[in-house]
Amino acid sequence: MKIFYSPAHLEHEPPQEFEQGRMAPAVEVPERVERVRAEAERRKIGALLPPRDFGMEPVSRVHDAGLVTFLSEASSLWRKRYGEGAPPAIPSAWPGRGMKNRFQGDVESRLGTYAFDTATPIVRGTWSASLAAANCALSAAEAIKSGERAAFALARPPGHHASADVFGGYCYLNNIAIAAQWCVDHGLKPAVLDVDYHHGNGTQSIFYGRDDVLFVSIHGDPSFAYPHFLGFADEHGEGRGEGANLNLPLPMYSAWDAYSWALDKAAKKIRAFGPDVLLVSLGLDSFEADPISKFKLRAEDYLRMGEAIAGLKLPTVFNFEGGYNLDALAAITVNVLEGFESAA
Amino acid sequence: MKIFYSPAHLEHEPPQEFEQGRMAPAVEVPERVERVRAEAERRKIGALLPPRDFGMEPVSRVHDAGLVTFLSEASSLWRKRYGEGAPPAIPSAWPGRGMKNRFQGDVESRLGTYAFDTATPIVRGTWSASLAAANCALSAAEAIKSGERAAFALARPPGHHASADVFGGYCYLNNIAIAAQWCVDHGLKPAVLDVDYHHGNGTQSIFYGRDDVLFVSIHGDPSFAYPHFLGFADEHGEGRGEGANLNLPLPMYSAWDAYSWALDKAAKKIRAFGPDVLLVSLGLDSFEADPISKFKLRAEDYLRMGEAIAGLKLPTVFNFEGGYNLDALAAITVNVLEGFESAA
Repeated sequence: MKIFYSPAHLEHEPPQEFEQGRMAPAVEVPERVERVRAEAERRKIGALLPPRDFGMEPVSRVHDAGLVTFLSEASSLWRKRYGEGAPPAIPSAWPGRGMKNRFQGDVESRLGTYAFDTATPIVRGTWSASLAAANCALSAAEAIKSGERAAFALARPPGHHASADVFGGYCYLNNIAIAAQWCVDHGLKPAVLDVDYHHGNGTQSIFYGRDDVLFVSIHGDPSFAYPHFLGFADEHGEGRGEGANLNLPLPMYSAWDAYSWALDKAAKKIRAFGPDVLLVSLGLDSFEADPISKFKLRAEDYLRMGEAIAGLKLPTVFNFEGGYNLDALAAITVNVLEGFESAA
Repeated sequence: MKIFYSPAHLEHEPPQEFEQGRMAPAVEVPERVERVRAEAERRKIGALLPPRDFGMEPVSRVHDAGLVTFLSEASSLWRKRYGEGAPPAIPSAWPGRGMKNRFQGDVESRLGTYAFDTATPIVRGTWSASLAAANCALSAAEAIKSGERAAFALARPPGHHASADVFGGYCYLNNIAIAAQWCVDHGLKPAVLDVDYHHGNGTQSIFYGRDDVLFVSIHGDPSFAYPHFLGFADEHGEGRGEGANLNLPLPMYSAWDAYSWALDKAAKKIRAFGPDVLLVSLGLDSFEADPISKFKLRAEDYLRMGEAIAGLKLPTVFNFEGGYNLDALAAITVNVLEGFESAA
C-alpha cells in the first residue's frame, strides 16, 4: 500500500510532558515514526511517498479558526513572553467552571482556553509537523478516492484527541477527522474505526451531531483511562448523529479475547452503516507492554486485527495515532498492515 | 488586634508547582506565615490566639459538598493510585469544551474537574491546613462580632481564588468568603476588599449573584495577570448582585499613585454599600520586588494602605492571602496593620 510520510515530524520533539504531578520524558517522540518507517521498508509494505500540500481549506472544514491561528503562532508568542530559552509551551491554568474562555487573550489565556491537558507541549516545529500530518492523512484519503485499496498515513503528531477547538493528548490537529471530512466533501461516505487504547474524544466530538460520518472506538474505559472526560458507552451521538457514535470501552487488562469481541461488534456497526471508505485511527498502545496503557494484546494479535479490518472489505486509510513501546511498536504496526494485506 | 494562628499550616508544604512549562520551587511556603508571625510579635501588633473549631457547617455554607469531600480525600486517593512516594497531586488533564465534568470519577478525573490550575498541589497536610485557615478567618469574624475593632487571620493556604466548587491559585477553601457568609448568617452585612495582586476570582464568583455581600478588588489586569479568566472591569455582578461587584484592574507596573487612586474608588464603593464589617483579602504581592507579580508598591506604601483602610471606620478582618517576597513580606504585612492601628 502507499505510505505517506513527511520528515516535518522530526522538528516536533518536545522533550518532556507534565503528568502524575511531575515532568516525565515525552513518549510521543520522533523515533516512533522512524522505527515504523524502517520496519515497513524492511517488510516491503509499500512505497514511501511525500504528502501533497492540500492548503488550509480541508483543515478549516474541521477546525475552529481561532484554534488554527493560535496553534500557528503559539510557539512564537510563548518565546516572546518567556524568552528564546523557555521550555515548550504548556498551559498551567484554564477556565474552570465560572470562569471565562479567553479566545482573544494573551498567550497564557489562549493556551489554557484551547488546551485540555499538560501533556501536549508546543515547540517551534509543532505547527509544521501538524500540518504535514494532516496532509499525510489527506493524501491517504485521496489515494483511496483514486482507487487504491489501502493507504497508510505514517505521521505524527497524532490527531484523534483534538476536537474542533480544543487540543490535547499529544494531538493538535485531528488528522483523521480532516481526512473523513475530505471524504464527505468528495462524495465518499466514511466510517472511522479508532483502535487506539485511548478514546478518540476529538474525533467523536467533531462528528457527534452528524449522521454522515460514523465513529466507532474500542478503548480503555475512561473510568480509569485517559482522556477521562469522554468515551463512555452511553455516548451514542446526538440530534441527527444519534446512533452514529459507538463507544466500546473495555476493562483494564483486556486481552485479545475481549478485544476481538469488541472488534466484532465494531465491524457489525460499520457494516450496518454502509460506508464507502474506512478510516482507521491506528493506535498501537493496546499492546501488553505499552508503557502508559493497560491492555494486554500480544504482537501476533495485531495480525488478527489487520485481518479483521480487511474483513470489512472496504477501501481503508490507516492513520498512525498512539503506541509508545519503542521496541515493539514497529513490528506490531506492520503486523496490522501485513495482516490486512494478507486477508485483503 | 487579635491574631489568629494555627501551626496546622506547617504541614501544607508542597515543594514545587508547575507553571510556564516547568516545575518551579513553590512560592506559597510555610515560611511566609512564620516570618509574619515573628514580625507581628516583634512590633507588638497583638496577641496570637488559636482559632476556634467551627466544624464543617460554615464551610458547607459556601462550598459545594463534592469539592469538600474531594479535598478531604484527594491526597489519600492519589497516593493509593500512584504510591506513597508519589509527588503531590496536581491535575494534568481537565474537561475542556465538549468534554464532561466528572464529579464522581477516579482521582485523576475529579482532580481535573475540581481544579483550574497546576500551581495548587495537594499533599497530606493540605486538608487540615485548609480547615485551620478557614477557622482562623471565622475566628477573626467572630472577634469582630464580639466587638473587636480589628482582627487578623494569619493563616495559609490562602483562599480567594477558590470558588464554590473549583480550587486553584494556591487556594483550596475560600477563607474570606466563608467568613463573609458567617457574618451574613450572624446578622452582619459584609464588604470584601481584595488588595491581593491577583484577582479574587473565587470570592467574586461565590457572591456574584448576591446583593448582601459587596466584593471590591484591586489587581493586575487579567489581560496579562493570573488568574487570566476573570477579574475584568466589566464584571459588575448579575441578577440581584448587579452592582455589588467592583473590579479595579490596574496596568502592569502600577505604583502607589495609581494604586491609591483605585483604593479611593474602592473606599467610595464600600461606603456607599454601607456594610457593618469590612473583610480585607490581604495579599502583599503588589510589592515592587514580589517575585511573581508586576506592581511597584514600596514598603512605606503599605502604611498608607493601612491608614486608608482604617479611614473606612469599619470593624475590620484582615485575612492573609498572597505575597511572596520572603525578605520583605513580614515588614510590609505588619506595615498595613500598623498603618491601620495608628489611624484607627
